[in-house]
Amino acid sequence: MTDTVIISPLTHIGEITKASNIAMHLVSSCKKQNLHIEEGDILVVTQKIVSKAEGQVVLLSEIEPSDKAIGFATEFKKDPRLIELIFRESKRIVRMDHGVIISETKQGFICANAGIDQSNVGNTDTATLLPSDPDASAKLIRSNLQELSGVQKVAVIISDTWGRPWREGQVNFAIGVAGMEAIRDYRGEKDSYGYTLSASVIGIADELAASAELVMGKVDKVPAAHIRGYAYQEKNTDAKTLLRNAKIDLFR
Amino acid sequence: MTDTVIISPLTHIGEITKASNIAMHLVSSCKKQNLHIEEGDILVVTQKIVSKAEGQVVLLSEIEPSDKAIGFATEFKKDPRLIELIFRESKRIVRMDHGVIISETKQGFICANAGIDQSNVGNTDTATLLPSDPDASAKLIRSNLQELSGVQKVAVIISDTWGRPWREGQVNFAIGVAGMEAIRDYRGEKDSYGYTLSASVIGIADELAASAELVMGKVDKVPAAHIRGYAYQEKNTDAKTLLRNAKIDLFR
Repeated sequence: MTDTVIISPLTHIGEITKASNIAMHLVSSCKKQNLHIEEGDILVVTQKIVSKAEGQVVLLSEIEPSDKAIGFATEFKKDPRLIELIFRESKRIVRMDHGVIISETKQGFICANAGIDQSNVGNTDTATLLPSDPDASAKLIRSNLQELSGVQKVAVIISDTWGRPWREGQVNFAIGVAGMEAIRDYRGEKDSYGYTLSASVIGIADELAASAELVMGKVDKVPAAHIRGYAYQEKNTDAKTLLRNAKIDLFR
Repeated sequence: MTDTVIISPLTHIGEITKASNIAMHLVSSCKKQNLHIEEGDILVVTQKIVSKAEGQVVLLSEIEPSDKAIGFATEFKKDPRLIELIFRESKRIVRMDHGVIISETKQGFICANAGIDQSNVGNTDTATLLPSDPDASAKLIRSNLQELSGVQKVAVIISDTWGRPWREGQVNFAIGVAGMEAIRDYRGEKDSYGYTLSASVIGIADELAASAELVMGKVDKVPAAHIRGYAYQEKNTDAKTLLRNAKIDLFR
């Protein structure tokens, strides 16, 4: 728990297109950087390249916006085709005001614009959707990584960059997790004074995703990071465990 | 931006009591760990030890709960004195349900229980309040650090561990920042394809705080971390810049 954690950018990922094997790009970037994958390492991959590899890419020119989308888009000077896409990718709108749409996505995430993004796709007519099942995406990347690297204890986190209520600035969140626990539960353990910790359940996958963003930047083309030194448990929980049950959520 | 970031726990902080010079404890722990402070380093310190050093410690036995506090405490089986303290430290209640109180604290943060905490204080009758002005606390620690270490470009972040809407698991947030920008603004810059980034404003101080939590744990006595390799701008913005203006916040 108290080891030094080292976070490195993967700077040689190269271009990802439909059906790219992301694990291959990760392994190859690590090799070029003399950063060989070892037991216990964690690879963090941005949603953007996973969506590209899975073909979750949409041409706006092919989207026919509904009247509702046109209405909202006109009011807030947005692209009606993008608004239409956001509606299609949402199960439920949580808030829609000030030109901002916060919704619950098909995958169960609550975020702005249903996670649809237009940066780093190479074309302003193009938008990426979230992977349809990011935990499954993480699992696949992980098993390919295990095969290609020969390393068995390796974890994969898929990250996305979202805003938060009450606070300015976006941060990275974990939307897919494989090979490690997404949450660490300290409840019942005693602190250094013997006080039983009652509320310490830590979203470690989100913290790892946030720490990876520090080496990724948004302008440079760094869509992945390598983390070494974080002693995680090898469990088969996933990023869905980070989603709060609607019944006990005070902000839906 | 794309350097490797190294996060180390400060394992020799020692006991912090009222009027402790936290910078001295940081420098001394670094020395004992052969981790000398260099230009560009960031020190992350938990709220808990800052509150202790500033005497923001309250004995519950000295708190007289109001009828309102007793009512809420009875309904949800809480300590009425703790509820009373939460009310006193809050400017405004945002949500109060399921036994959870989310409020805006005197300092302007929105979090559970007004940031009042009972772990790692050595006594179940004792609770710590947030520092009354965490940005000022960070500034003071920073100037003491500069003096003691001789290093001028050093940044200080004070962190606290909070829950979030919609997601399970707490993560670390930055509540005080000195010597660096709390937010990095990429708006107007172009991505690797020439697409102008419109929404990329990153809460880097929160991400640095979250990454520091990875080496702190909750059970071990590691109340501070040392971060090297993150290329920040030396600016005088503070953690208050992370607080969204109530007028544009959809969740108050």
